This record gives sequence, structure tokens and C-alpha cells, in this order.
Amino acid sequence: MARGSLLYAQSGGVTAVINATASAVIQAARRHRVQVLAARNGILGALREELIDTSAEPIASIRALAHTPGGAFGSCRYKLKAPEVDRAPYQRLIDVFRAHDVRWFLYNGGNDSADTALKLSKIATEFGYPLACIGVPKTVDNDLDVTDCCPGFASAAKYTAVSVREAALDVAAMASTSTKVFVYEAMGRHAGWLAAASGMAGEGRDEAPHIILFPERVFDEAAFLAKVKETVARVGWCVVVASEGVHGPDGRFLAEAGTVDAFGHAQLGGVAPHLAEMVKSRLGYKVHWTVPDYLQRSARHLASATDLKHALAVGEAAVDYAMEGRNAVMPVIVRTSDAPYRWKIEAAPLERLANHEKKLPAGFVRPDGYGITAAARRYFAPLLRGEAPPPYGRDGIPAYVALGNRAVRKALPDWAG
Amino acid sequence: MARGSLLYAQSGGVTAVINATASAVIQAARRHRVQVLAARNGILGALREELIDTSAEPIASIRALAHTPGGAFGSCRYKLKAPEVDRAPYQRLIDVFRAHDVRWFLYNGGNDSADTALKLSKIATEFGYPLACIGVPKTVDNDLDVTDCCPGFASAAKYTAVSVREAALDVAAMASTSTKVFVYEAMGRHAGWLAAASGMAGEGRDEAPHIILFPERVFDEAAFLAKVKETVARVGWCVVVASEGVHGPDGRFLAEAGTVDAFGHAQLGGVAPHLAEMVKSRLGYKVHWTVPDYLQRSARHLASATDLKHALAVGEAAVDYAMEGRNAVMPVIVRTSDAPYRWKIEAAPLERLANHEKKLPAGFVRPDGYGITAAARRYFAPLLRGEAPPPYGRDGIPAYVALGNRAVRKALPDWAG
Repeated sequence: MARGSLLYAQSGGVTAVINATASAVIQAARRHRVQVLAARNGILGALREELIDTSAEPIASIRALAHTPGGAFGSCRYKLKAPEVDRAPYQRLIDVFRAHDVRWFLYNGGNDSADTALKLSKIATEFGYPLACIGVPKTVDNDLDVTDCCPGFASAAKYTAVSVREAALDVAAMASTSTKVFVYEAMGRHAGWLAAASGMAGEGRDEAPHIILFPERVFDEAAFLAKVKETVARVGWCVVVASEGVHGPDGRFLAEAGTVDAFGHAQLGGVAPHLAEMVKSRLGYKVHWTVPDYLQRSARHLASATDLKHALAVGEAAVDYAMEGRNAVMPVIVRTSDAPYRWKIEAAPLERLANHEKKLPAGFVRPDGYGITAAARRYFAPLLRGEAPPPYGRDGIPAYVALGNRAVRKALPDWAG
Repeated sequence: MARGSLLYAQSGGVTAVINATASAVIQAARRHRVQVLAARNGILGALREELIDTSAEPIASIRALAHTPGGAFGSCRYKLKAPEVDRAPYQRLIDVFRAHDVRWFLYNGGNDSADTALKLSKIATEFGYPLACIGVPKTVDNDLDVTDCCPGFASAAKYTAVSVREAALDVAAMASTSTKVFVYEAMGRHAGWLAAASGMAGEGRDEAPHIILFPERVFDEAAFLAKVKETVARVGWCVVVASEGVHGPDGRFLAEAGTVDAFGHAQLGGVAPHLAEMVKSRLGYKVHWTVPDYLQRSARHLASATDLKHALAVGEAAVDYAMEGRNAVMPVIVRTSDAPYRWKIEAAPLERLANHEKKLPAGFVRPDGYGITAAARRYFAPLLRGEAPPPYGRDGIPAYVALGNRAVRKALPDWAG
């Protein structure tokens, strides 16, 4: 049995396959005979010494994690201040890690989490505490740098493309007397990856989605309305996919909720009803709209098989890196061929990922700004490919697992932070 | 070859399995060597003499209809006035039917369509035109009388329960620092069938959905907010499912779009953001909300196997009834046992279905008004059971079929109506 334990934590918005990564981490560590602790609610659980002993979970439950969406140990939106500003939380983390002999910290999240893992690895070095910090990629936003794609994104992308295809068939059937315009709101604050993936629902100018609105382009109301009108005139109906991050020339989001999250990001939602009202009042068409919100990132029932493979692979690789004694790295997905699709996992320094945000490449957006290019299709195609349905119960609902999440006895005083 | 042709038309909101009914109708009629015409965009196509010759479709396409959502021939929201008010459209329909030797009319819709089919059968008798009118049930609202359930409902119900379960796992993971309340808006103007089906996502008072708001109950803001607060205090988070038809003591819908459809029904949408804003401003919780809208009724990828069987069975039975010379009837689903689930198809007179609206039974709603009873669970369980996924293409998207829809040459002058 290797000395010390491995601490795994989930951070930020969860995905359909983040638990698949957790499943792979735990199974790989068990093969190495390393105990895996999980932090309850991400880094907060580490600070509060709220740790879970995953050894108590039967292997069947750990395997079932691979088909269960959400975050099995709880996640959080909580960003540590820089150590120059407040060193106390880092000191506390080292104290907790020392108390539970944590030698490896695997942080499963996006670029904020990569930044936290990087800072923590530096502090540990300063304290002389032997700790390997490994970032593990995850985000439906697909905005992590370096990696070809982020586990979680491809399943949300598949959900988006399938849902838009299905809704388009509905609208096409209703358009003669009823709904002529349908607006679908996709997640994506600053990067239009999910909105772009909706383009895979159809090809050719008469197929839905007819208009995609990207956060990378400035919204032009007059041009948009003209495009809707022209599409309805030509096709009989029009499907619009709008990224939640669509903004006008002043840089303001079309529909701001007016609140900010723990990272100081504006919390969005509601661009679809906003656009629907615009189309209805200005063009007079009957409009329907949808905001799938969390459904798009938790739809494990419609996960991409490619995504599931990625999610499992980064989990396994992260444990391998930890056991090899690597520090401040993240396993990333490297694409070596579009068709046939080939990929591999490589280690990238966290320095290269922390706080960077990858936008949709300009070459993925059609010159008119309302659709995707052939290059984008080559990128998305293998990501959406393949189905990985969960087992279903007799109740007709996927048999998602709930873990026991047995708490580790605390050894330290409560955290005052 | 039997004399005359059979006209099939789709009406009202489409479903994930209405095309499965169309597939069964066409295949059954082909076995009887009867030509099937389809009206383009429902009854409007019949009035406009816009007919489709389905004989031109290869059998593979007709079979693929069974896994394709939407309405393959187009649907419509268009209600004929009563013949006492305007006899011209009925005269026109008989003219069109006579011109194309239509002897059987199968109208696939809800209670409005049953009413239209009934009126048409009476007018045909008055005109002395030999016509059998058969209603074929369909509606995600499940509000048709007589039948135990309506094809289309069970798949939307499965979508609702699965989506709520998945989103609940997401919210549970985020609640410690972020979203504590999630509001899901279900279709259902006056009958809370889909909202009720969400109750199958969990059992026991701590499982989601914690609060279901039915249109059959008057919304009480103070009681609702108290229930949300109490749930968050106890569970840490709260999932609310609200029917779009939720209304206050004054009878007004909580969120009215202010427009009405062709049947004079108020067009709804937006109760979820309304409730989300209420919870956020009054209780201060971070809230997320979803309005799945058309996604819930077109999600063929998540269809219920039971629903698919029903949809196919009513299509076959409708053709059988037509061939047997029955008139003004509808094949309905009769449940003979909950567990094991047993059902059969019987013919019900359209008189019993036309314009009746079946509400959720009072015995399906918990005394506190916020959840479902064991009786409701016994009803829903077999409907949600079983999966019937469509085949997927290499693109990772279901291989939905698009028909050729070859137009029948017109024989009459244009309709002036």
C-alpha cells in the first residue's frame, strides 16, 4: 500500500460525465491500493475538513458513478483569494492535508480550478509539504485552453444538437398556422461552443438551426430581424439558437439577471424570451422559446460515448500522473486525427491552463456570423458520435446511484474562514 | 383493392410518437391494399386540397416514421366553426373527399379534433356521402376523456421525470454555494398531468421534486414561499415543478403571454422565470429555472416504450375500424391491470370524447397540494416504463426520416375560405 491518501474534489458547474471521471479516479487509485478521500462540496469541504472516505463505497456504486450525472460529492463555486491577499486558507488546506496524510490532490474543474490547484502546489512547496496537485479537466463550456475539448462539453453538445433537431421537426409541423419562430438558449457565457454545436442539427441553409447567435459576435438587432424574416419567407419557419452570452454593441448582455456568482461573473439567463418578445413584437410571428438551463449539462441519458471515454481517460491519467510523482499538471485531450477520430491524453502544465479562456475559433463561424463552417463540423462530428445510455430501472428512469458518502472523522478544530 | 382512399391528417400540437401512429396507419392500410392520402398541415390541407400521396414513400421511410418526432405531414391549429355558423368548409371538405374518392377520414388529434371528426361525419351523412370518420388519440396533455391515457403523453411524462431527476442531481451538487432552488416549467394548460408525472422523479419527502404546482389548485404565494424555505432548510435545496397553467385566486395564470391561439386558448409560457424571480426577491436564494417547451413533447430520443406501443396500436385499430365500416369512433386505451400492466384497445364513440377535458383526478394530488399520491404512482409507473430509442447516425444524432411528401394533383378550384 502506497503511503498517504489521494484527495479528489469537484469544482464549478457539474456535467453529465464528471462523475465518470470520479469513477475512473477511484477505480485507478484502488488498483494502486491508494485510499481516495473526496472533499464534500469541492474545495470548501477541504477547508472545512468535511471529507468523505470513498473506501466505504461498494465497487458497484463506484462503477455506477460512470453513468450518473451531477456531482456525487458536491461541487462549489468558491474561489480562493490569491495567497498574497489571504494566505490563511492555503495554510488551512495544508493543515487538513497533513492531518489526513493527503499526498495527492486531484481537482476536477475548469480554468479557475486549474488556477487554484496551481497556487496550492506552489504553497505546498513553500511549506515543504510533499503534495502533488493534478488538475482534471471538466466544463460544458469547452473554454479550457490547451486541451482539444473538455469532458462534459461533448455530451452537452450532443444534447443541444439532438434537442434542436427534435424541436425543429416540431416547429416545421406547426408553422402553417401557429409557431413560426423557435428560440433555443444555449449555455456559454463568453464562448459560443454549445451554440455552435447546435449547428450539427442540420446542414444546408434550409435546415435548422437557421440562425446561431454567438457571444463572439456583436448582436445587430436589425440584421437579426431581417434574417428571421427572410428565413420564414423562404422556409416557412425559423429556428434560432442563441448563446446566453449574446451581447450588443455596448458589450452588455442582451438579458442580464443582474446578479454575479462567486467568481464575479454576471449570472445570465433569459436571452431566449428576450429575443422571442423582440421577434413577436417587431415581426408579428408566433414564437416559442426554450431555456434548457441545467437540463443541457445534466442529461446523462443522452451522453456522448466519446465524451464518456474522455471523462474516464482523464480520470485514469490523473491518477497515473499522481503515482508518477508529477505535480501541477493536467491530463489534456490531444486530437491527432479528425477522421478517423484519434486522440490521446498528454500532461500539460497547469500554468498553461490556469485562468485562460478559449474562445470559439474565428474559423468556426460562417462569414455571415449566423452559422458554422466545415472546419467546425470536422471538429464537432467525432465529439457527438456514439451513445452511452445509462441502465434504466423498472420505473422507466435511469438507475442513477446515490453514494453513502461516509464522513471521515475530523481531526482539527473548525475552520474559522 | 378496396374501393376509395383513406385520408389521414394530424392536428394540434405534435408529439414524440404521433408519427408512429401515422406509420401504423399507413402500414395497416397497405396490408388492406387501401391507398393512404395525407392532408398537408391537418384539416387545412384537406380544405385547400393539399394532399400527399403516401404510396410514393418507400416502406423503409414509413417504418422510420415510427422513430421520428414532429408531424411528418404538418399539423395545424385550426378549428372549424360549427356547421350551423358556417356550412361552407364542411361542403368544401365533402367536395375534396369526393374528388379524391376519400371514404375514410382518420383525424389524429385531441378533443378539438374529435369534435371536428364528429361534425364531419354528421355532415357527410346529411350530404349522403359515404364517409367513415375515425378519431385517433394524441396529446401530450393527456386530457382526453374516456381513454386511460393519450399517445404522446407517456413519452413527455418520461422526459419530464428523467429531466427533473437529472437536474435535481445537478442542483444538489451546486447548492452549498450556488443554486438552491430550481424551477421546472411543465406543459399543461388546465390539467396538471405532466407536472404530476414529474413526481415520478423521486419518492419520499426529501427527494425532488419537492414541490409540484398544479393548475387544479389555486396558487398561494405565501404558502409556496414557506414551503420553499422549509425545504431548503431541511434538504439544502429545493426543486419546484410548475405547470404552465398555475393560476392565482383570481383565476389569472401566473404568467400570461397575453396572446391566444386559434382555439381561443390563452398562450402561456414563463411561469418558471416568474416563480424564480419571486423566490429570489422574497427569499434571497440563488435560483435557476428551465422552460423545456417543445423539447418535452418532441424528445423522441427518450420516448417511453409503452407510449410507442400505444401509438402504434391506436393507428392499427383506427384502420381496422375504418375497414369494418365503423363511423364516429375513436380507438381508446383501456387499462385492465396496473401491475402487471395490461391494456387493450376499444372503440369509443366520438360523442363521448369531443370537447371534453379530463383533469387530473383529485385523488392523484397529495392532501397538501404539492405532490402526488400512491394512486398517481400506480397510474404513471407503467406509462414511463421501457425505452424505445431511435437509431442514431454516424453524426451522433438520431436518424430521423424526412418524407418526400409527393403532392396529389389538384382536381378542384382553389378554396376561397
